[in-house]
Amino acid sequence: MRIPVQVYAEPDMTDIEHIIKRPDQHDSEIREQVRGILDQVRLKGDQALKEFTRIFDRVEIDRILLTDKEVAAAASKVAPELKTAMEQARANIYAFHAAQGKSEVSVETQKGVRCWRRVQPIERVGIYVPGGVAPLFSSVFMLAIPAQIAGCSEIVLASPPNKTGDIYPATVYAAQLCGVTKIIRAGGAQAIAAMAYGTTSVPKVDKILGPGNRYTTAAKQMVAGEYTAVDIPAGPSEVMILADSSSVPEVIAADMLSQAEHGNDSQAIAVVPDKKMADQVISELLDQLEKLPRKEFALASLANSMIVCTEDREKILNLVNGYAPEHLIILRQDADQWETCIKHAGSVFMGPWTPESAGDYASGTNHTLPTGGWARAYSGISVESFQKHITFQRIEPAGLRNLGPVVEILASEEGLEGHRNAVTVRLNRLHGEKGGTV
Amino acid sequence: MRIPVQVYAEPDMTDIEHIIKRPDQHDSEIREQVRGILDQVRLKGDQALKEFTRIFDRVEIDRILLTDKEVAAAASKVAPELKTAMEQARANIYAFHAAQGKSEVSVETQKGVRCWRRVQPIERVGIYVPGGVAPLFSSVFMLAIPAQIAGCSEIVLASPPNKTGDIYPATVYAAQLCGVTKIIRAGGAQAIAAMAYGTTSVPKVDKILGPGNRYTTAAKQMVAGEYTAVDIPAGPSEVMILADSSSVPEVIAADMLSQAEHGNDSQAIAVVPDKKMADQVISELLDQLEKLPRKEFALASLANSMIVCTEDREKILNLVNGYAPEHLIILRQDADQWETCIKHAGSVFMGPWTPESAGDYASGTNHTLPTGGWARAYSGISVESFQKHITFQRIEPAGLRNLGPVVEILASEEGLEGHRNAVTVRLNRLHGEKGGTV
Repeated sequence: MRIPVQVYAEPDMTDIEHIIKRPDQHDSEIREQVRGILDQVRLKGDQALKEFTRIFDRVEIDRILLTDKEVAAAASKVAPELKTAMEQARANIYAFHAAQGKSEVSVETQKGVRCWRRVQPIERVGIYVPGGVAPLFSSVFMLAIPAQIAGCSEIVLASPPNKTGDIYPATVYAAQLCGVTKIIRAGGAQAIAAMAYGTTSVPKVDKILGPGNRYTTAAKQMVAGEYTAVDIPAGPSEVMILADSSSVPEVIAADMLSQAEHGNDSQAIAVVPDKKMADQVISELLDQLEKLPRKEFALASLANSMIVCTEDREKILNLVNGYAPEHLIILRQDADQWETCIKHAGSVFMGPWTPESAGDYASGTNHTLPTGGWARAYSGISVESFQKHITFQRIEPAGLRNLGPVVEILASEEGLEGHRNAVTVRLNRLHGEKGGTV
Repeated sequence: MRIPVQVYAEPDMTDIEHIIKRPDQHDSEIREQVRGILDQVRLKGDQALKEFTRIFDRVEIDRILLTDKEVAAAASKVAPELKTAMEQARANIYAFHAAQGKSEVSVETQKGVRCWRRVQPIERVGIYVPGGVAPLFSSVFMLAIPAQIAGCSEIVLASPPNKTGDIYPATVYAAQLCGVTKIIRAGGAQAIAAMAYGTTSVPKVDKILGPGNRYTTAAKQMVAGEYTAVDIPAGPSEVMILADSSSVPEVIAADMLSQAEHGNDSQAIAVVPDKKMADQVISELLDQLEKLPRKEFALASLANSMIVCTEDREKILNLVNGYAPEHLIILRQDADQWETCIKHAGSVFMGPWTPESAGDYASGTNHTLPTGGWARAYSGISVESFQKHITFQRIEPAGLRNLGPVVEILASEEGLEGHRNAVTVRLNRLHGEKGGTV
């Protein structure tokens, strides 16, 4: 077997531009199919949801919502060892997220003019948890814990049912641990549609968050800005690894494969000091790949993957910040000296003892992160993703005496005499012309 | 003349549902036209930008970017009185926004496992400032000041040129005051396209923010999630006013008109205690409307507007939170007792001496706010709109000894053996099986 990963020795700027360019994603056909699903759910609600579940998940479901009894029963189906591990993960994720959140602010901007903002949870949120190739119950923690901390009053979780119409027990148990209020057995574009439009069983939500495949991603894009807000654009998962001469090829290969096993379109880019280490990594990839149950996925995604050989710090930083990786593992001994130079990345794993999978599950950081270079503009999910703020201002009569004329000048200059007049009528009253009160 | 505003006396729940339903917006034809503009700019860059400026703004432009000399010259064209007013507005907006921003967080989630996040400015941002019906230079402050505070290194401002190919001097002067790095003379969908794709003259930006008409809004939606991030969905401006028996009809009418003059599709909803006050407000509207230069706009948008007569606190809160107004003016004497009950609104103006136009220009709060009910999920623009964060984690060997097995269990349960193995190879080394180092 040949490992299809590309090797770039001492890349020049043209190579770097090529490396940081991601594989093309064409989803126009998907969008057309998704359009049909969205329309049906919007028109027929629960009935369409059940029909698409029959077609795509190949199971007939009677009830869309899990009952309290079904939710309670999930706990007994989760092994004690798994429960303990889940509890440790939950505690770490809770601890890191509890320290987050938007800040309340109050400033007297000038005498008699106070401006403040109050932070509010987004009332109703929908979180999507994939259940396809692997039951990703860890995503429940990553979405529901920040929602719970933010104080959202309705947290709807959607996940596709298995062949018996059930949701994976660990997913339900995780939901129970962190305040999910409703669980709906539906996946794909139809689940997104149900949460965006609302159906008899499913409440319409204000924002939908969570990872997903191309169908759910397309569905989220299509309902966004019209029916509901959504989180970051989702795309194939990816990792960049920075190694130095002390790094162990076995570890580099393991980190590449932990990314590559996600799906055919994942991408792993390792930066190693020289061609010799690149060859060692490839040899390790070959060994480890054989033992991987998800070997087919990993092999396919290695074809999108690359090993770059260079020790040029400036080139490496161009690679990192140009690519803006979802995950960045700095295996290097001098990881600390790179921290402040990282401008664009989702989550960064510092030093040789910090595997990316620790962040996927249990270190405490969020694993819902910007892919596809979106780390240039987006952050991963945080408590702030479930919050908004409202600004307030109160102007006292003395404040309006000073600020009013400023507003009059600016409004007139913009040709908005109605805006000016809203100040003028008040100033007139304040100056006693009409009795000194409004 | 008849004032076309609808009056609802003691509305029931059906009325309230009707009142909070916004007028329909259909933009499918606009999207088709915008698609053509986007494609041309993506393919032909500057050339297309000049061509569309010739067609839509009816002016031939040689250079797209303003030169330093042109920027410097703007200051001399702004009247001293206007400059002073602008400076006061700038100072207030700066003071309120300087207190904002994402928080850095660092938590040891368990012994030997540290998670933190670092706040970063979004590197390159594009801000759009309309220049059509009114030269909205105040929007420059609302967008560029938070960008400046966030520390964005490229702040590109786009605004449509006038008939001589110039940008309104106060717009250019405002840009100069708050760190705008490039000004491009282009408006509409073509300006959005240029900033989303980049052209020879215009840098591609990571995020586009700012208000606009239906064309720029459609263009922003269409490039979002594919080429660039964007801010909140934009729609017609709107105000809700809560009055009590002490409120002055002249002031209520002035506040309604200051919203109504924005455009044909603006909406103003006043809640007054009784029919008598509703009639007084209508009579005031009639008087004030006559003196308004933008009377046509105001009259058209009054047809979307309403006066609701009720003193029922619960109904009023249902109206406010159901409608989720962009602007909420609480003229009531007991404004303070309503603050914490407001769950969904953009910006709130407390008490009778706080006109909405103060927030539009100079109180200090931001005037780029969620419309169309989006206040349920979005906040107005803030310093956070120009920031992102990167999460980091560092696991010490002792931390991995404890956390590693937890991750192994969780990864295996999800069927992701590659994820598990990235921990296992490290634990093996840590336990000395392969020399105790990675």
